Amino acid sequence: MEYRLSDKMECMKPSAIREIFKSLTDPTIISFAAGNPAAESFPVEEISKISADIFSDPASAAQALQYSITEGYPRLREQVKERLKNKFNIGKEFDTTIITSGGQQGIDLASKVLCNEGDVIICENPSFIGALNAFRANGARLVGVPGETGENGEDLGISIESLEETLKAEKNAKLIYMIPTFQNPAGATLSLEKRKAVYTLAKKYGVMILEDNPYGELRFAGEDVPTIKSMDEDGIVIYSGSFSKILSAGMRIGFLCAPDAIVSKIVVAKQVNDVHTNIFFQMVCSRFIDECDLDGHIAKIRALYGRKCALMLSEMDKHFPKDKVVYTRPEGGIFIWCRLIGETDSSAIVKSAIANKVAVVPGATFNADESQPSNGFRLNYSTPTDEQIVKGIEILGKALRGE
Amino acid sequence: MEYRLSDKMECMKPSAIREIFKSLTDPTIISFAAGNPAAESFPVEEISKISADIFSDPASAAQALQYSITEGYPRLREQVKERLKNKFNIGKEFDTTIITSGGQQGIDLASKVLCNEGDVIICENPSFIGALNAFRANGARLVGVPGETGENGEDLGISIESLEETLKAEKNAKLIYMIPTFQNPAGATLSLEKRKAVYTLAKKYGVMILEDNPYGELRFAGEDVPTIKSMDEDGIVIYSGSFSKILSAGMRIGFLCAPDAIVSKIVVAKQVNDVHTNIFFQMVCSRFIDECDLDGHIAKIRALYGRKCALMLSEMDKHFPKDKVVYTRPEGGIFIWCRLIGETDSSAIVKSAIANKVAVVPGATFNADESQPSNGFRLNYSTPTDEQIVKGIEILGKALRGE
Repeated sequence: MEYRLSDKMECMKPSAIREIFKSLTDPTIISFAAGNPAAESFPVEEISKISADIFSDPASAAQALQYSITEGYPRLREQVKERLKNKFNIGKEFDTTIITSGGQQGIDLASKVLCNEGDVIICENPSFIGALNAFRANGARLVGVPGETGENGEDLGISIESLEETLKAEKNAKLIYMIPTFQNPAGATLSLEKRKAVYTLAKKYGVMILEDNPYGELRFAGEDVPTIKSMDEDGIVIYSGSFSKILSAGMRIGFLCAPDAIVSKIVVAKQVNDVHTNIFFQMVCSRFIDECDLDGHIAKIRALYGRKCALMLSEMDKHFPKDKVVYTRPEGGIFIWCRLIGETDSSAIVKSAIANKVAVVPGATFNADESQPSNGFRLNYSTPTDEQIVKGIEILGKALRGE
Repeated sequence: MEYRLSDKMECMKPSAIREIFKSLTDPTIISFAAGNPAAESFPVEEISKISADIFSDPASAAQALQYSITEGYPRLREQVKERLKNKFNIGKEFDTTIITSGGQQGIDLASKVLCNEGDVIICENPSFIGALNAFRANGARLVGVPGETGENGEDLGISIESLEETLKAEKNAKLIYMIPTFQNPAGATLSLEKRKAVYTLAKKYGVMILEDNPYGELRFAGEDVPTIKSMDEDGIVIYSGSFSKILSAGMRIGFLCAPDAIVSKIVVAKQVNDVHTNIFFQMVCSRFIDECDLDGHIAKIRALYGRKCALMLSEMDKHFPKDKVVYTRPEGGIFIWCRLIGETDSSAIVKSAIANKVAVVPGATFNADESQPSNGFRLNYSTPTDEQIVKGIEILGKALRGE
């Protein structure tokens, strides 16, 4: 039967990453393609104890299993609000913080609330496929702004000049979507100057900013840079965060901090989307913050990822041909971004890698226009074991050398 | 600051029910306004044990806290598929079953996948506010089809004649949304003949049916009627179900069974909406089905709601003036629907009730066109205690008699 689907969904395809995921049932494949936190980063013992506490008390058990309010568990909202203020200087009088079903839901609903079909969302090119697909599924048109490259090949993030040209050209632009810290996939952390410039331009052209910061607490080297949201005197920044990378991804707990006029519409959109975020894990998060040492736990994750990143980089330094590929040296997050020198398309290398049982994500996946080729590919170091990192990078090195 | 919101969200308001909910922080108010399952219907002991089992095994703990696949936990999908087949004769070769973050998400995403802005969704009038608002938030235009009333004032469900007139008139109709069993709020269970007629008309006019069945297993009197989905030889019915009313509402686990071509798009929409449903509670549901007696548990809920419904009805028979109000005598579900005789608008009664500390939901809330008045109001008997039912109905009786 021929089904008449909505125009905005008709052209949508499953995310290449999720599809790679599903194809990874072959246990002999080494995957650098995922974006999963390390399993050993989950505080299982604490969550297990908190969970037992919640279910052993009749009142909290009933609360954990009953319908709850759309905005989120009040105590957790309060804790997130405080944490955002203390850690990131985020939150003005006009802002409200709500809990979402993972960071992804906040991004999806923010674009639903702001964009009519055909409206433009400006994004970094490349950028996070999950957000780009959310925008596409809401009928937005994506316009990518390229990044700049430093003298040593390092990624310096979005070109401010190109951003202004784009803002001038795109009268229907509603939103600038950015991951300013440990950008996915390109790894750049935008400088303070560039952040200020982005904010100034957004204000000048009457466009909002959606600042996505899922990795912001995962810095293992270098110095923190203030969030764009911390500069938001005018109520033009929507900030999205998540517990996925610092506590557990499976529990699906994220949050938004944004001007109340925007949040109140997002709450309406969330109400009709999933009524509320699962309340049990909101309670778990809240108790974890109250009863355990969240900052100490994050420090352990940072150390783990710093070590795994250093291992992957040292193996890459050993096996990757220096005349054929450059790559980022991350100060945080969970990804390394590689670019082929003098090439425009990485897909042959990606295919050769998977034929040799190593999965990476081809760069074109992250383009605002996926039909454009990319000379990049993305590696993840949080999910694979040390042994997989050593073996997989050796195989990738051979693929890069054409062996 | 003036924000430029999307047209479809600009006009959306928070659901009146959710707002009533939030106003119910006053513990002296007796609420018949909610749609919550009874707290005593949650199998806390079993869920607590299953939860401890999941977290005590490192492999299952890691699985419960890690990202998972969008379609849902494979074992639970299999169990839901089997259960739908055995209980409701649902599921053809062309169908696929997926897990959603509550029934609400399935309804929201089904309409997102099918409808362009301005497309028409035909619904029963009155109908479930959560679904109607999801359709509105996706830019659909709602057209309500009135129900018929029997000789004794009982609600007989949608008028087939009006449905066909509407289908003839609305060329952009994409979907007929129905709750054929224990309809919310009007309580009617559509006869087999009417179900067949709806199916035939949908096929004739090339429109899909979204059959929402959250209360189908909560029958405490009368005989089951086959689902519309069980008649689906042509792949035109999307079936939505949920564990909210039979296990726990807070865990947000629902499911859809629909033709694969539709489901595959809904999976894409879900991927960008919340990546996946929280995996821990999918595992809890699955283990509950495997290790506990779900049907026995549902039998207990049925008995509980049958008893509470009978109590509310007997108090209504005692206190409600027979010349001023008629009401349904439900065979299942969690609601009683009342209509004022010779009146067009129930809002004065609803206001008088809340002034006397009893909350009910005004019927206009459930209209496809909310600006139209309704002579109905909805009562819930699953949430209040027996004492609250006795006291609250007495107060309502006084309000109805104008005392």
